[in-house]
Amino acid sequence: MTRLKVTLLAGGVGGAKMAEGFAALDDVDLTVIGNIADDAQFHGLWVSPDIDTMIYTLAGVIDRDQGWGVADEGRRALDTLKRLGEDTWMFLGDRDFGLHIHRTSRIAKGERRSVIAADIARSFGVDAKIVLPTDDVIQTRVRTEAGWLGFQEYFVRERCAPDIFEIAFDGMETARPTPEALQAISGAELLVIAPSNPLVSIAPILGIPGLRDAMAGASAPRIAVSPLIAGKVVKGPADRMLASLGHRQDAVGVAALYADIIDLMVIDTQDAGLSEDIERLGMAAATADILMKDARDKAGLAETVIAMAGRVAQRGDAA
Amino acid sequence: MTRLKVTLLAGGVGGAKMAEGFAALDDVDLTVIGNIADDAQFHGLWVSPDIDTMIYTLAGVIDRDQGWGVADEGRRALDTLKRLGEDTWMFLGDRDFGLHIHRTSRIAKGERRSVIAADIARSFGVDAKIVLPTDDVIQTRVRTEAGWLGFQEYFVRERCAPDIFEIAFDGMETARPTPEALQAISGAELLVIAPSNPLVSIAPILGIPGLRDAMAGASAPRIAVSPLIAGKVVKGPADRMLASLGHRQDAVGVAALYADIIDLMVIDTQDAGLSEDIERLGMAAATADILMKDARDKAGLAETVIAMAGRVAQRGDAA
Repeated sequence: MTRLKVTLLAGGVGGAKMAEGFAALDDVDLTVIGNIADDAQFHGLWVSPDIDTMIYTLAGVIDRDQGWGVADEGRRALDTLKRLGEDTWMFLGDRDFGLHIHRTSRIAKGERRSVIAADIARSFGVDAKIVLPTDDVIQTRVRTEAGWLGFQEYFVRERCAPDIFEIAFDGMETARPTPEALQAISGAELLVIAPSNPLVSIAPILGIPGLRDAMAGASAPRIAVSPLIAGKVVKGPADRMLASLGHRQDAVGVAALYADIIDLMVIDTQDAGLSEDIERLGMAAATADILMKDARDKAGLAETVIAMAGRVAQRGDAA
Repeated sequence: MTRLKVTLLAGGVGGAKMAEGFAALDDVDLTVIGNIADDAQFHGLWVSPDIDTMIYTLAGVIDRDQGWGVADEGRRALDTLKRLGEDTWMFLGDRDFGLHIHRTSRIAKGERRSVIAADIARSFGVDAKIVLPTDDVIQTRVRTEAGWLGFQEYFVRERCAPDIFEIAFDGMETARPTPEALQAISGAELLVIAPSNPLVSIAPILGIPGLRDAMAGASAPRIAVSPLIAGKVVKGPADRMLASLGHRQDAVGVAALYADIIDLMVIDTQDAGLSEDIERLGMAAATADILMKDARDKAGLAETVIAMAGRVAQRGDAA
């Protein structure tokens, strides 16, 4: 069986759900380009929240209740660190610590972060290829009323409460894309942007010099799935972030951010009224039930997206 | 109440027991100079087995059954590391990992190892002062039939099975003693060498340039407690190590190693017949029940050693 080569650009929990959908399809050969701009050091160890969530989800060891972290976690290591006076607002479980210890020791040996991530995914039995957009360090910061915060400080410590007025990606200008990421885009038969936060999950992937151009020049159909339904996100701060940064707080606002690089925007059925505004951006719009409540929804949405790719290709041929 | 300033040179489990004995006495102000030559990096983290055993023991969180490690440990982090393909013959529990993560991140920031150890002890509520003999890295290696092994490889991975033909302390020649260790020796009112392995626990303390001389020149009574009873150790490979390295495999063999730096050797009652041979080395010998089975034994032995110090002082005056 020839499998369809799907490359998914994906951030945190929403991205992992979409990845699960494609991974559930036997006829899909999935590659995920994940977001590393949330990476941060805690207690001297490198934590890679989006990549780890992706791996844990695809490996089936994710804590389903909270959507991140490993099931059956312990907090003995963190309790010790707390006893030793360290800041422990970032919850890191004992199993999770094992992963961060492993990653950090390999980084210290000079190994490429993308090789480490791919090896970890394999060790966890993940079939999909996990690709990092860069081996360099990029770190998201956000400006709030109280000043600049590291992304995890904003996201975890402050629970996304502050409004965001500016986003910066430290290290972005000098970052180089990995050959694996460029190949995953140019070699894909279908390119999908997951329903992830466009501003802090997808933007730091596309912002790496060369990757947005690769998307713009890709020959495969390019489809984005809206992370917003009726102007609201399922999870996370993307809706409020779009608004406070002057974007439309709906699927149109998201589509506008991808105007030069996608052919089709998939929006929720209840957002059908936004189709015209999206098409005015120079792309197609299609509706589907995009809320992924369970495994069936995820695989169903993945199948729908693949079916829509046929329409995009025809469109391209007709143009 | 003026408390007696006792400084204890101590290694692993036997050293920790002796420390517990002194720590149980209200009229003792205890300082422990521990052994750091067993320190090693695992998974990129610095582990300090003897110092940690000392702290965990004095903090009352030690796993009493095995004599090392923390009670109520988990193995989630280690399970993850194993899944990721790492060698996991060195058991490190989740609580223990928290400590190693903390230590390693502070070492990476350039902090002195002795300051870190003292802080950890305080955080665990240990009243005794924990002093490192040096802030430099010294690492014990042992030569076996199969070649040189790192100490933990020999001690943990090989379970002390191979015979030892040579011991080396990498980094010893250029190591500098800490001011705290020098002060703990010169300022002590009683100096005690714990019933620890003389070759791999006490030797790497005394071998740090300046520390053996400090012991030799100290004004306080200096007493060693034999780690061997009837030629056998309570725990560990000291007896076999003494034999394979050409020493007498009894309390006399241990006393000979301390001939220039102690005034009195405490041996077990059943070893009373060794007293003459010990006195021939130029020191006094005294007998006591030195097997420490419980808290009462430990405190009792500590009291006995303190009582014997009076005799040493009188001896010194009479000489």
